[in-house]
Amino acid sequence: MFIIGELINSTRKVISQAIELKDKVYLQDLARRQAEAGAQYIDVNAAQGGNEIDDMMWLVDLIQDVVDIPLCIDSPSAAALEAGLSRCRKKAMINSISGESIRWEEVLPIIKRYQPKVVALCMDESGMPETAEDRLNVADKLVAGLVDVGVPENDIFLDPLIKPLGVNHLYGQEVFNSTLAMRTKYPQVHIISGLSNVSFGMPERRLLNRAFMVMSVALGMDAFILDPLDPTLMSLLTASTALAGQDEYCMDYITSVRSGKVKA
Amino acid sequence: MFIIGELINSTRKVISQAIELKDKVYLQDLARRQAEAGAQYIDVNAAQGGNEIDDMMWLVDLIQDVVDIPLCIDSPSAAALEAGLSRCRKKAMINSISGESIRWEEVLPIIKRYQPKVVALCMDESGMPETAEDRLNVADKLVAGLVDVGVPENDIFLDPLIKPLGVNHLYGQEVFNSTLAMRTKYPQVHIISGLSNVSFGMPERRLLNRAFMVMSVALGMDAFILDPLDPTLMSLLTASTALAGQDEYCMDYITSVRSGKVKA
Repeated sequence: MFIIGELINSTRKVISQAIELKDKVYLQDLARRQAEAGAQYIDVNAAQGGNEIDDMMWLVDLIQDVVDIPLCIDSPSAAALEAGLSRCRKKAMINSISGESIRWEEVLPIIKRYQPKVVALCMDESGMPETAEDRLNVADKLVAGLVDVGVPENDIFLDPLIKPLGVNHLYGQEVFNSTLAMRTKYPQVHIISGLSNVSFGMPERRLLNRAFMVMSVALGMDAFILDPLDPTLMSLLTASTALAGQDEYCMDYITSVRSGKVKA
Repeated sequence: MFIIGELINSTRKVISQAIELKDKVYLQDLARRQAEAGAQYIDVNAAQGGNEIDDMMWLVDLIQDVVDIPLCIDSPSAAALEAGLSRCRKKAMINSISGESIRWEEVLPIIKRYQPKVVALCMDESGMPETAEDRLNVADKLVAGLVDVGVPENDIFLDPLIKPLGVNHLYGQEVFNSTLAMRTKYPQVHIISGLSNVSFGMPERRLLNRAFMVMSVALGMDAFILDPLDPTLMSLLTASTALAGQDEYCMDYITSVRSGKVKA
């Protein structure tokens, strides 16, 4: 299971303010707490300031000064992705490439140069996918294209793109079907998702997010961009990883319960 | 989704005592509370007393005096199943038949006579199933045999039989694989499970039980024998039912949140 801590994201107001105020102490503390809580990557998004490239490099440097885990460089801007990668001391992940031709052309040279792990969004020129079949068609092109430039399958993280359940009550099921189809077709490729889109516009969003995560694990999703400081979410992820047969002798589950990290 | 309230079960000491003391008030209150919390069936098990047949009839009568929902008559004894069914005022469920020949021969005449819904355990003479393929083989025989005597597929509830994760960390995965295979092969048949076996011998059992339930829903399980008085469990079940696309316009989810029954 891959756990990417989502909290250092400038679309959150508290983060864009901390970046603007150059509040290094707050941001480093947040990186440290995410790592301690079980994050294996720290997502870094600086897109909301006026100065994304400088902010990205500043964030990457300060986070790496306090945590040993790798980063997930997250930006809609190819230049910011490159700026972030240029400062990474460990093999990073980037979020993201997609099948849209402009994005593909912009980001592919960066992937060739830095060879990061890659989040690949299952969308292309035709826009957001509707059905599981749409997603698998785009996934086929993304995997083939990335493998073609030397990215090994197990460095690819396909994101099937979950749309809000409040818009259509079948949107969850479509992502589950897509996940199962991708897992079956590409056993080496990882499947990733964020947890907030599914519950957009609905009440008690954290409950839906938790259930979505646990269901996704059952269908083969193995990477999540999430809030590692939510102990209920992390406990459910540890339990579902064990139930999915990915925790030999359930040692991680049992150890995590004993240390108090995991509880009902 | 089918929700069977598990609490009136004489293997629980508090229940066997209440039966012995003929504590009608306590037992009726427990039936009422389970129904109010969302149970659609009340499981009735009287097997642990010295007088199972009389106790079963007494329980069935007193429960039906206070709740309108049907019962799930639960016993290892065919005679007790028949005694319970003979008092049921609504179409009941029985728990259970299996592919073991003695059990099959004993229970089939009762099914023919009363035409209840039927929980069918995926085991036969060869004992507890090991793999998903074993389970599907037994399921094939159970479905064919029950349909042959006139039980419609949608009155059949296959129980894939979950074994403790603490014994083998792949036992969860096997049940998920079985569930998916059964759901694909028999779209009309229901798939049912209790929630406690999976966590036997493990710490923080309720956490594993909850995650197991949510994962099972993702794979097509649609009936659970559970404690409806656990609000976290019931909230997760409502959320996962919506995410599985089985709650049109998410109306049940939204209504349940508004009424305070469902929360994160």
